[in-house]
Amino acid sequence: MPLGEFALIERYFRAAGASRGDVPVGVGDDGAILRPPPGFDLVAVSDTLVEGVHFPKASAPRSIGHRALAVNLSDIAAMGATPAWALLSLTLPSVDDGWLAEFSAGLGALARMHEVALVGGDTTRGPLTLGVQVMGFVPQGEGLRRSGGRVGDLLCVSGTPGDAAAGLAIVQRGLADARSADLAAALATLQARFEYPTPRLALGARLRAVASACIDVSDGLYGDASKLAAASSCAVHIDPQRLPRSAALAAAVSAGVFTDAEAAGFTAAGGDDYELLFTLPPAALASLQGELARGEITVIGALASGAGLWLMAQGVPQPVTPGGFDHFG
Amino acid sequence: MPLGEFALIERYFRAAGASRGDVPVGVGDDGAILRPPPGFDLVAVSDTLVEGVHFPKASAPRSIGHRALAVNLSDIAAMGATPAWALLSLTLPSVDDGWLAEFSAGLGALARMHEVALVGGDTTRGPLTLGVQVMGFVPQGEGLRRSGGRVGDLLCVSGTPGDAAAGLAIVQRGLADARSADLAAALATLQARFEYPTPRLALGARLRAVASACIDVSDGLYGDASKLAAASSCAVHIDPQRLPRSAALAAAVSAGVFTDAEAAGFTAAGGDDYELLFTLPPAALASLQGELARGEITVIGALASGAGLWLMAQGVPQPVTPGGFDHFG
Repeated sequence: MPLGEFALIERYFRAAGASRGDVPVGVGDDGAILRPPPGFDLVAVSDTLVEGVHFPKASAPRSIGHRALAVNLSDIAAMGATPAWALLSLTLPSVDDGWLAEFSAGLGALARMHEVALVGGDTTRGPLTLGVQVMGFVPQGEGLRRSGGRVGDLLCVSGTPGDAAAGLAIVQRGLADARSADLAAALATLQARFEYPTPRLALGARLRAVASACIDVSDGLYGDASKLAAASSCAVHIDPQRLPRSAALAAAVSAGVFTDAEAAGFTAAGGDDYELLFTLPPAALASLQGELARGEITVIGALASGAGLWLMAQGVPQPVTPGGFDHFG
Repeated sequence: MPLGEFALIERYFRAAGASRGDVPVGVGDDGAILRPPPGFDLVAVSDTLVEGVHFPKASAPRSIGHRALAVNLSDIAAMGATPAWALLSLTLPSVDDGWLAEFSAGLGALARMHEVALVGGDTTRGPLTLGVQVMGFVPQGEGLRRSGGRVGDLLCVSGTPGDAAAGLAIVQRGLADARSADLAAALATLQARFEYPTPRLALGARLRAVASACIDVSDGLYGDASKLAAASSCAVHIDPQRLPRSAALAAAVSAGVFTDAEAAGFTAAGGDDYELLFTLPPAALASLQGELARGEITVIGALASGAGLWLMAQGVPQPVTPGGFDHFG
């Protein structure tokens, strides 16, 4: 028997997220009723994933559920906020119980990890599309923006951008390689970085006190750095030699799965990493690094006077065209 | 030259909605920063329109823009809330400047009419899909729900449900009929009720003080009445003789454009009207009607003990199966 829309929402999503005391009315009415805490600003983000555009056809539904929420939590992190409530707009070509159970498990596990309640949404028949909105809080006036960077601020990035693009390439090209257990593990690590990205929520909240500007790396490191610099009315200088590379990506290059140039391209323009890219005054760096794990953030450049993206070559900045991925570019 | 995603959002949507003082950061960052008023609950709603499912292919883009926001404002109205902020997730098969300008004009005019700011969203390439989320406010604890109805409460509906379904049939069947100017005007009125529905925001806010339960009529009158009754743990009795019919729909029936049975079906199960269906204690009716325009609301039945939908026939309730439209039914 086909499930009704209402029963479908009820069955898979009412209990998928966290349970919160600030949700007087959640899933099941015309709208959700939510109780924001006094003294905080509300941060609202929205991101949509379309099959064949943002993830390959026939991707694991658990990964799709995880990513649909993770990309939004990453935007929440980039604002320095703490997430609270999510809405889901689910467009499905057909109702498949097994698919829905896995999708809901992937989304729900990440939601519960970050105490996010699923408070509403809608379901529609159509091409597979996942629209998610997340609302969160930030102490009034303390939200991080792209536009606060100043000339001389250091440019830092969390984690190891490029892993997700390498992981997507492994999926799309069928590069699983079992020549050795170590190589198989490295490729699996890269694939997981695409399929199950980690939103940097704790780091984003920590950065409120020190960062001058912040953006998440969703469309490629160079492109997103260019956006931050433009919003801050600065130029950005990046030293390609300082871009971090993960052990897994280095292992894949050593084994010849990717060339060094391919790997560098993944890091510079790959996107889908959902790391944080941020600026801070040089004086703030030491104490921040002292609190974080080694390698959790890397200084890769700085803001400068002027405009645009410049790459350091033998100590001299050279202007380049942004290479960020743009859906309508 | 194709527009970039960022430029596209900026160009068409930054200024489309109202300008509000409670939006510290709107379109153009990773998320919006919003400042909810103290003492109010937040109401969040989300609805998605898919081409070919919720509106015919090649619909006027101005109508699509209006409807994408109106269906969400109707949910806000059904909660008794006042709208404030909207997010837009726009999935487009291609970038068409003329289409975007008209879509944005339709959405923007309705947004400005109700002082709704467009604070963010995203654009993606794919099959035409409009996801809109609206956030609004309601005094703390006063949000209307589906579940508050009690045995003996009257069931009322605003406006004249069925007009929108008749309007859609006129579009889909090419029923424009110019035998007389009066008939042409009636058919145009019905078509406009589908293409440009009016969210009942003032009525919804007024109902906070008197209604025991409320839902908007989006999926068909009988089906939505059944949902309200089930949420309120009651049966609902409706007298089909009391269902209001607009002058325009009556004129279309008189001219033979629709049979009487077709028109009755539009009213009972058509959907897309975005009227409010609500319950209230009988003692509250007179003062409410005294404030409203004649015909703005109509008493069509009552809640009773038991469960399910019952239609009055010669004064005796007869049980029926709900006929609401269900996307996965």
